[in-house]
Amino acid sequence: MSLVRVHNFSISLDGFGTGEGQSSEAHFGHAGQRLHEWMFGTRFWQAGGSGGVDDAFARQRGSLAERDPAIGAEIMGAGMFGHPGWHEDPEWKGAWGANPPYHIPVYVLTQHTRPSIEMEGGTTFHFIDSSPAEALKTAREAAGGLDVRLSGGPTVIRDFLAAGLVDYLHIVVVPILLGRGVRLWDGLEGLEEHYQVEATSSPSGVTHVTFTRSAG
Amino acid sequence: MSLVRVHNFSISLDGFGTGEGQSSEAHFGHAGQRLHEWMFGTRFWQAGGSGGVDDAFARQRGSLAERDPAIGAEIMGAGMFGHPGWHEDPEWKGAWGANPPYHIPVYVLTQHTRPSIEMEGGTTFHFIDSSPAEALKTAREAAGGLDVRLSGGPTVIRDFLAAGLVDYLHIVVVPILLGRGVRLWDGLEGLEEHYQVEATSSPSGVTHVTFTRSAG
Repeated sequence: MSLVRVHNFSISLDGFGTGEGQSSEAHFGHAGQRLHEWMFGTRFWQAGGSGGVDDAFARQRGSLAERDPAIGAEIMGAGMFGHPGWHEDPEWKGAWGANPPYHIPVYVLTQHTRPSIEMEGGTTFHFIDSSPAEALKTAREAAGGLDVRLSGGPTVIRDFLAAGLVDYLHIVVVPILLGRGVRLWDGLEGLEEHYQVEATSSPSGVTHVTFTRSAG
Repeated sequence: MSLVRVHNFSISLDGFGTGEGQSSEAHFGHAGQRLHEWMFGTRFWQAGGSGGVDDAFARQRGSLAERDPAIGAEIMGAGMFGHPGWHEDPEWKGAWGANPPYHIPVYVLTQHTRPSIEMEGGTTFHFIDSSPAEALKTAREAAGGLDVRLSGGPTVIRDFLAAGLVDYLHIVVVPILLGRGVRLWDGLEGLEEHYQVEATSSPSGVTHVTFTRSAG
């Protein structure tokens, strides 16, 4: 069965998945890199990093350099593909360079559709303006029976959760208070009733929270 | 030195310290008892309960039956002393029965002041209408050099945190999404800069997060 999975999505203790004031220089706004420092400290990210629970969770996402054999397509929001206003730049191809770490078809949910962009390494960005359910149908067809990964940002993950479309959700709660930005959890009252929820704190200070869809 | 301490304050994963719709029958509104089930499962709460990390944290608060020798006074908000409208009931003496689990002077922050109420077991409720700093000054004098405990609810804890008056904060993050209620963290951007923050997840599913004021 083709699952919808979210991996390594970091939020602050007060629930923000990105900060305020996003721009081409600050993809996460005033949050800077603080939501992701836990990952930079792992062996997944760099040689000599730690090999503990943070690393184990980070690796579930699959390799950055190669295609994850279990993942057939990716979905992301417009706010993750670029800073506000990227759609006015016809040359914008995302912030990941010529060879993005996806290596599969990536569906960007946006009102500003444009022709697909084929990148190096197997990544192709497709731009679609559709509901979460429709987008998932499209991505699943492209995935050919493999899983679909949902990258972010917080608005897209929230919309997919609200629509009941997510099978596995891995959230990393970082012990900082951003105070402002985009919240992940708004409007998701009772979400836990449909999932097995586990929390695992790490010596790095973050807590990994996983939501695994209950059978049946 | 007399410290200001918060113990066992439970919030949902989406940051609510109490639910919506508080009443005399539902002190935490639609949250019911879900924010506190972790504590009911401990030996602190009942014989035969668990003796792990939840129990260790619960006991830091001190005994419910006797006065904690380290705590000299307590501060709580009007919303914790009673459901909305309690001030219209001249007979309301809190929801803890004749012998409340404080055994010390308790300062209730409220615009609706009334004469102090002496209860059994050493608890006296005093009603004051003052700022966090003024309330703390009053409570500290009553505490005679001992610590001051801040009970809740979320609004009062948030106000004391914003005023920089809290030395130790123990939060219990419960893996449920309440969706609505009163948030703890609003307006506290950067709070972590003044504290050592640690997170410890428990087999019960909750995560204990402690903020310990940094020296100097």
